[in-house]
Amino acid sequence: MAKKPTILITNDDSVSAPGIKALVEAVKDLGKVYVVAPDKPQSGMGHAITINHPLRLSQVTYFGDDVAEAWQVNGTPVDCVKLAVDRVLHGHPTICLSGINHGANHSINVIYSGTMSAALEAAIEGIPSIGFSLLDFSVEADFSAAKVYVKKIVQAFLAQTLEPHTCLNVNIPAVPENLIQGVKICRQAYAKYEENFEERKDPSGKSYYWLTGAFVNFDKQKDSDVWALENNYVSIVPVTFDLTNYPLREKLEKTFKL
Amino acid sequence: MAKKPTILITNDDSVSAPGIKALVEAVKDLGKVYVVAPDKPQSGMGHAITINHPLRLSQVTYFGDDVAEAWQVNGTPVDCVKLAVDRVLHGHPTICLSGINHGANHSINVIYSGTMSAALEAAIEGIPSIGFSLLDFSVEADFSAAKVYVKKIVQAFLAQTLEPHTCLNVNIPAVPENLIQGVKICRQAYAKYEENFEERKDPSGKSYYWLTGAFVNFDKQKDSDVWALENNYVSIVPVTFDLTNYPLREKLEKTFKL
Repeated sequence: MAKKPTILITNDDSVSAPGIKALVEAVKDLGKVYVVAPDKPQSGMGHAITINHPLRLSQVTYFGDDVAEAWQVNGTPVDCVKLAVDRVLHGHPTICLSGINHGANHSINVIYSGTMSAALEAAIEGIPSIGFSLLDFSVEADFSAAKVYVKKIVQAFLAQTLEPHTCLNVNIPAVPENLIQGVKICRQAYAKYEENFEERKDPSGKSYYWLTGAFVNFDKQKDSDVWALENNYVSIVPVTFDLTNYPLREKLEKTFKL
Repeated sequence: MAKKPTILITNDDSVSAPGIKALVEAVKDLGKVYVVAPDKPQSGMGHAITINHPLRLSQVTYFGDDVAEAWQVNGTPVDCVKLAVDRVLHGHPTICLSGINHGANHSINVIYSGTMSAALEAAIEGIPSIGFSLLDFSVEADFSAAKVYVKKIVQAFLAQTLEPHTCLNVNIPAVPENLIQGVKICRQAYAKYEENFEERKDPSGKSYYWLTGAFVNFDKQKDSDVWALENNYVSIVPVTFDLTNYPLREKLEKTFKL
């Protein structure tokens, strides 16, 4: 009998978010599950790590018998992956799963997302990983269709011979299961946020600013994750941590003279 | 006469770090300089943004006549770029420069680096950008050779017809100017940190952990940034925010079946 896979689960919405509970429930029968997740929301933390204060690990019982162990950390999603490997698992799990995020992580969101940074950190360490997001920000989001697709995708993932640095960004449309058209392997859409800071005044009359912004998709091609999601497909974008812009490198080698 | 370029400067070591002062001094004659930088150190913040508390902008006089305006922000390097565009410049600068970072941002460091995330955020917004780092963590680092190369590189950068999403990651070896062998266009070396959390006990006997880690370079090729720096070249890696792993996408389209 093949050894049961070890599945490390984390997220960025905190250990008590409904999305991570849905992820645990979706995959608990596929392996031995360990949860190591932030003790408070860490959305928008990107690939931040904690170097100026120490980290704490505290066991939590929130997941009951669905997990082998569950821990919360007073740090970022990336911290959680690092601590899990070094201090909880004392080695590499078979795979790492992050999410299910409350809200989209398609297109440029991959850069800001704590969910995806945790998955990418695992891939950097040589642990194949997947980040999952449901396109519904609500704390009361319905994860039932998402759970079905999460389980299918993790099963297919475990059945592959995985290159250790594999990382997938999976986004799931917020529609009932019968409306989902299937799964598409995509590329990251070319999109961005157009910032618009909202100015307010404090009681002493000094200004402060809230970050807001409108999402703008410049990408009209049908192979992007945004297109797939708009058409009710689950999008899968394989993600890399090699940020080298190879075409530009080639160009600069010819043109950039000091 | 061509219009003087507008140069936005930020960093992650805070507005009062010697490195940002060196950057301002290096480029002050090349354009109209605006500084918008964090009010405290933000190393390791990656691409974090501040969404759960509001931001403040406060003018600082620290740079004297070298700058048109200088502001500090109670947020991350990425926040600084966003606020600068929306609330200080009310539009795009010609270029954005980040640094000079105290310490290396070559290889995988690009992922964790607040310095490089600020530069990448500018590129996402369509502002050509460069992040500069000197391979010396010390607050008393000698930036004199770095300043010479920063000026040369920014001059060459401004002389090019720049694609608006261009982002360069420049690392400078910590040696005197006469030992620097020149500038190399490189790719990001394949390297990582091997974590080792240091455990301590607080006065009540509870454990806490400090993130430490050993840098391991797996990349023995001569076109990587680490190789260039080890051989006393200034390394320039063009950086992208499209994280799609295109070769893996092609493979998965054939093999990934649900």
